[in-house]
Amino acid sequence: MLKDKMDAVRKKAPLVHNMTNYVTINDCANITLACGASPIMAEAIEEAEDIVSLADGLNLNMGMLTVNKLAAMLQAGQKANCLGKPVVLDPVGAGASSFRKQSLEQLLSSVRFSVIRGNLSEIRAIASGMVEEKGVDSTRQVTEQNLKDAVSLAKRLSQKTGAVIVISGAMDIVADDEKAYVVHNGSALMSKVTGTGCMLSSVLAAYVSVKKDSPLEAAVSAVCAMGLCGEIAEQRMRTEDGNASYRMYLIDAMYNMDGNVLEKGARYEMY
Amino acid sequence: MLKDKMDAVRKKAPLVHNMTNYVTINDCANITLACGASPIMAEAIEEAEDIVSLADGLNLNMGMLTVNKLAAMLQAGQKANCLGKPVVLDPVGAGASSFRKQSLEQLLSSVRFSVIRGNLSEIRAIASGMVEEKGVDSTRQVTEQNLKDAVSLAKRLSQKTGAVIVISGAMDIVADDEKAYVVHNGSALMSKVTGTGCMLSSVLAAYVSVKKDSPLEAAVSAVCAMGLCGEIAEQRMRTEDGNASYRMYLIDAMYNMDGNVLEKGARYEMY
Amino acid sequence: MLKDKMDAVRKKAPLVHNMTNYVTINDCANITLACGASPIMAEAIEEAEDIVSLADGLNLNMGMLTVNKLAAMLQAGQKANCLGKPVVLDPVGAGASSFRKQSLEQLLSSVRFSVIRGNLSEIRAIASGMVEEKGVDSTRQVTEQNLKDAVSLAKRLSQKTGAVIVISGAMDIVADDEKAYVVHNGSALMSKVTGTGCMLSSVLAAYVSVKKDSPLEAAVSAVCAMGLCGEIAEQRMRTEDGNASYRMYLIDAMYNMDGNVLEKGARYEMY
Repeated sequence: MLKDKMDAVRKKAPLVHNMTNYVTINDCANITLACGASPIMAEAIEEAEDIVSLADGLNLNMGMLTVNKLAAMLQAGQKANCLGKPVVLDPVGAGASSFRKQSLEQLLSSVRFSVIRGNLSEIRAIASGMVEEKGVDSTRQVTEQNLKDAVSLAKRLSQKTGAVIVISGAMDIVADDEKAYVVHNGSALMSKVTGTGCMLSSVLAAYVSVKKDSPLEAAVSAVCAMGLCGEIAEQRMRTEDGNASYRMYLIDAMYNMDGNVLEKGARYEMY
Repeated sequence: MLKDKMDAVRKKAPLVHNMTNYVTINDCANITLACGASPIMAEAIEEAEDIVSLADGLNLNMGMLTVNKLAAMLQAGQKANCLGKPVVLDPVGAGASSFRKQSLEQLLSSVRFSVIRGNLSEIRAIASGMVEEKGVDSTRQVTEQNLKDAVSLAKRLSQKTGAVIVISGAMDIVADDEKAYVVHNGSALMSKVTGTGCMLSSVLAAYVSVKKDSPLEAAVSAVCAMGLCGEIAEQRMRTEDGNASYRMYLIDAMYNMDGNVLEKGARYEMY
Repeated sequence: MLKDKMDAVRKKAPLVHNMTNYVTINDCANITLACGASPIMAEAIEEAEDIVSLADGLNLNMGMLTVNKLAAMLQAGQKANCLGKPVVLDPVGAGASSFRKQSLEQLLSSVRFSVIRGNLSEIRAIASGMVEEKGVDSTRQVTEQNLKDAVSLAKRLSQKTGAVIVISGAMDIVADDEKAYVVHNGSALMSKVTGTGCMLSSVLAAYVSVKKDSPLEAAVSAVCAMGLCGEIAEQRMRTEDGNASYRMYLIDAMYNMDGNVLEKGARYEMY
């Protein structure tokens, strides 16, 4: 199930338009190249529609959001919807400020997303008000204890938004309104590098761009691939290496990732 | 004196709000993680107060300053002052333009800083007009020859601003209005990588965030740690390595830095 | 011919003002340091003229262009012209949107450039309307087949703009209105890292800043140096390395590049 998604990205080399924060923008561009796609970064509202028209998919990342960037994102997102091009939302810091809450509401009410990816607290911030919360306590990670409730939350949010929901963490959840997968790949070191979430969102955008009709499976493939890269990168770590080396190993691992390695190393199950 | 500062950062994992330039923003985030803290980057004036309220400390870096960013910085800085959260100022390029001079004046008159860190010419640009300059000639480095005058400048600027003053260079000076330390750690290679100063300011913000009552000692600890990382990184350099490898080794060294290694490797003295 | 250009950059250490995109801004700063120059990044219109006045050269990169940045670029470019300081243009994504087309027209009609560097499609987008196109088909690379026509295009565009034209690709063309060189250095891996073009433009700005009277030879030297770095970086690649390691090796290679190595490794010919 995973190999053909990865192969399709490498074969079709989709052009992915990223509107993203400046902290991790270089890593997002390089991991987009590493996974076989081509990145284009642009944020002026004057060219938002033109650039989306050239691209195969769009990734909207709310990190370091500004009023100008939000306006450009709304325009790009709506144009992508018109053109039938998939849009990924990364709600960085959702809930951290009133500004982000309001911006998130605007994005969710104006743009249809193919995938929404965040950590548990970001996904909960989105869900808040949209779907009834039950059971998911305030822990910031998906655990064996809250897994069932987190899956339920993801499914209901998917139903409400029409998007595949990805909750990143020690265990990852990937769900649409009917099916849910739990992915066990990954490494604790991923949280010691800024931008592993942002990078995953860029990879998700590449994957759904070539598999528009099966966004759930495309998302599972991207999540497994990223997690497996985290494991491979961890294995490369030597005594003096730290989070900066790890960041490099992570992108390198995506560059060298092969569909067969992915199939063999992926650890996921339907929930 | 140094070990407990480093341990406190790793234990408390303070959230540090960085408003900074885009050249080195990724390195600042990753070295913040490497030293045991958590970075948050945000710059919209609409959320400046909200983000500061979540954070334990604030780092204002004037690199690539714009009018919009200055306005957000002023708001964030004043909010941090209200909430009793420490604020670090990195006056990048102070004196390079009328715009930076005026912006600096606004920041200094509106916000109380816990630490101000720059190279000798940046600190002199701040001092100019505020304190009488004597003796510190136009050399860009602190040397044995001008050390006494540079220490005096730092002390007087500290008295005027209430901030601990850090002058970075081959020798670093860390001073409040009464005491001054000279730090001898460091490597000439640090000047071959963009952003080692910016990274130190992020680390300083993490350290003073957990030691609000002893900013001088917290600052000495951060400066020694960064300088020692510079030395450790230099020792890792192999024949084909250059400044890009060095940048990675530097952040890696902070990630692996240990309080005992710091105590043993630190070379500083009260002046 | 090449060694003295490289030695001059290392000796004079020119200050290069880069107004550039945020994807590759850190790499541009670090490769500027690696080649022996000093980078300064600033983009506020309020300080555009002041910063240019401090600098020895200016690099205008259209990636992630915004209306505000364009206005600052125009001011900086005109000031550089007044002061006789060389200006490099990197027309990233020229032709990708109406906004970039119009911005490009404004830049070309307001600022005299010493060097314009892009890939074939970007250079063609500039040439379109300015010079008669003939023969250069829509392939995105310079090949043996279209080399003659591409050289002719570069020469005519140089005549029209007064700038040395650099067309980057598997083969690079460097031309003024009379002479043209073809450079064969480089590696296919360079296209797997974001920003190798941007980095070359920063290096070009450093080289022409110290050789204002011979921009063609300065540009050939920079292009050969960058391509040779690409080859050296490729030779360092080990099994697990990917595009992130390659990026580091590339900048490292520039840091260690020596005039004699450059003379020996450069593969170029007058066309």
